[in-house]
Amino acid sequence: MTHSRGKVEVTTRVTLETPDDLAEHYTPGVADQAKRIADDPSTLARETVKANSVAIVSDGSALLGLGDQGPAAALPVMEGKAALLKRFADVDAWPICPVSREPDDLVRTVKDLATSFGAINLEDIAAPRCFTVERRLHDELDIPVFHDDQHGTAVVVLGALHNALKLTGREPAGTSVVIAGAGAAGSAIARLLLRAGYHADGIVVCDSEGVLHPDRDLVGEKHWLAENTNAARVTGSVQDALRDADVFVGVSAGGLLKPDDVAAMADRAIVFALANPDPEVDPDAAREHAEVVATGRSDFPNQINNVLAFPGMFRGLLDSGATRVTGEMLLAAAHALADVVGEDLDPGHIVPSVFDEAVVPAMAAAVAGAAEAAE
Amino acid sequence: MTHSRGKVEVTTRVTLETPDDLAEHYTPGVADQAKRIADDPSTLARETVKANSVAIVSDGSALLGLGDQGPAAALPVMEGKAALLKRFADVDAWPICPVSREPDDLVRTVKDLATSFGAINLEDIAAPRCFTVERRLHDELDIPVFHDDQHGTAVVVLGALHNALKLTGREPAGTSVVIAGAGAAGSAIARLLLRAGYHADGIVVCDSEGVLHPDRDLVGEKHWLAENTNAARVTGSVQDALRDADVFVGVSAGGLLKPDDVAAMADRAIVFALANPDPEVDPDAAREHAEVVATGRSDFPNQINNVLAFPGMFRGLLDSGATRVTGEMLLAAAHALADVVGEDLDPGHIVPSVFDEAVVPAMAAAVAGAAEAAE
Repeated sequence: MTHSRGKVEVTTRVTLETPDDLAEHYTPGVADQAKRIADDPSTLARETVKANSVAIVSDGSALLGLGDQGPAAALPVMEGKAALLKRFADVDAWPICPVSREPDDLVRTVKDLATSFGAINLEDIAAPRCFTVERRLHDELDIPVFHDDQHGTAVVVLGALHNALKLTGREPAGTSVVIAGAGAAGSAIARLLLRAGYHADGIVVCDSEGVLHPDRDLVGEKHWLAENTNAARVTGSVQDALRDADVFVGVSAGGLLKPDDVAAMADRAIVFALANPDPEVDPDAAREHAEVVATGRSDFPNQINNVLAFPGMFRGLLDSGATRVTGEMLLAAAHALADVVGEDLDPGHIVPSVFDEAVVPAMAAAVAGAAEAAE
Repeated sequence: MTHSRGKVEVTTRVTLETPDDLAEHYTPGVADQAKRIADDPSTLARETVKANSVAIVSDGSALLGLGDQGPAAALPVMEGKAALLKRFADVDAWPICPVSREPDDLVRTVKDLATSFGAINLEDIAAPRCFTVERRLHDELDIPVFHDDQHGTAVVVLGALHNALKLTGREPAGTSVVIAGAGAAGSAIARLLLRAGYHADGIVVCDSEGVLHPDRDLVGEKHWLAENTNAARVTGSVQDALRDADVFVGVSAGGLLKPDDVAAMADRAIVFALANPDPEVDPDAAREHAEVVATGRSDFPNQINNVLAFPGMFRGLLDSGATRVTGEMLLAAAHALADVVGEDLDPGHIVPSVFDEAVVPAMAAAVAGAAEAAE
């Protein structure tokens, strides 16, 4: 691919072949439409691209597993995501890769874009800045702000875990989960598990220094996690926490665990080793000690991929005219995703294929239902 | 049109039907592309949407002839423009309608967008703010910034005038031109005429107070115009200036002139009454006293419409990889536009139809040629 025009293009929805076509869709016809919107701004999302569009925003500061690569390097990734949104959910998405790094500047830029988009997708922005940006935009914008690294990952993990618990005869309330990684993904997974009925004494979050607990000198999101998970006040390393645990969710780095660490977990253990491209533990070795193993890779069973979440989420957000992303929507989407597997559920098939055409409609309906229930 | 998704959509350029397609166009395939761009930013415009895309930016502060309608009302107009760019020049354009009004904020927002666009189109931003924003972006960005209200209008007017002069046996150097309107369009027309060989003593610009001259208390762009046009230091009203003038170019307001004002012009006068929807003078009445009459309307001969300029301009800018819009490009584009008329030239046909398929290639080649000559 040495000379291309990228992965998406902008095409016309209208016919422009005669002077009358031009008069209708450009001047003077658009003047009436402009006046109608000026008089009644609620028509904006019914008559324009705002009805079906998403801005995919990334500064490239935490790009894939590559670290800070800057906004230019982020562009091919974000336009790939735009292509997926069209392919899977018929959403019109355009990549925006700001050079700004200060949260105030990023917030200002996204607010300046928001007129022509129906929703915002934040992506691959370094923590803890991403939390500040997402929360401010959530509060200050009147369109939904979805942070895929948080919300998308959490939805797929919760959906997959729902099915894994079903297979291993567990309920959320009695299940112990160790999350490795306290960035955007780890934090959002912990928060969504709490909302889904997992107990604070059953969730332990670890960063590269070990288990988060209140005696550590933590600020911001990690401080919140230390206060609101790990009710048993466990200390030590991720290996210490993992002993007798039911579930491992890795959103950290390749090679974190040895097979023996998995062997030390509870019987019928569940291991989600989601670091890409190298999982936290070798999935084949893990499977010798765990009943359910999932990774982020397409060449192993149970691929936990955000493509399972964001297309259906955005379809539902846009269809419902939702003004924000709520916890209820994330829960509803996760359960809808889990239910798509249906009778095909087995330890090698806890999530649907990304090509399963039932996924997007089911999740979109669930999100729209949660949006309406919240009205 | 009570419920639509607007006039443009985003579609995929790539196939996403198999896991291998996803691996190539999303993770892990995009990681290689991201690293390549991080290592060599010059690949950005060869491999991504930046190669062929334009941001159409308007705050809606001077929307069409409607005045300040705000960014929401601007959206249907700008997406219509995006549709035209695709239809006529195969350019991928997306509308951006910032809520910001301060030049500093608009500049910051556009710079934050620029990574994913190959060029910027500024549109319908109130003067004099539009000049500040355009010049700062011209200086601070490494992609071309085209202000359609200035550059687009000036290119079409100069091209049309070139043919009108040919018909009436005039040369730029000896021709007297009265421009009514000292906003973005009037200013840019005056500047481009100076560059095209019209003399400073042959150009008089008027605003709603009358002729611009150095004794008036003027600032900014109007001050520049007073100093650099009207070398004969004419004073008075537009009617005063028009007496014995060869050319009238109106970019002001409907009904400014009476037929008698046209009758007072030189023999074989040229009248461009471009105010929309109501021209500065009734075109049928004007034609009784002038040899060539043009308007902005599609229901009279000689429609001076920016659609004749911006598609070919952007095609040329993107094809050549130009980093800025230059005066040479505007001149070359205007002459290319005039030449498309060829042997069909007559007083009722001084510009091609917007549907003439020769327009965009001819102008794009002229712009690209000017870009290469400037290297």
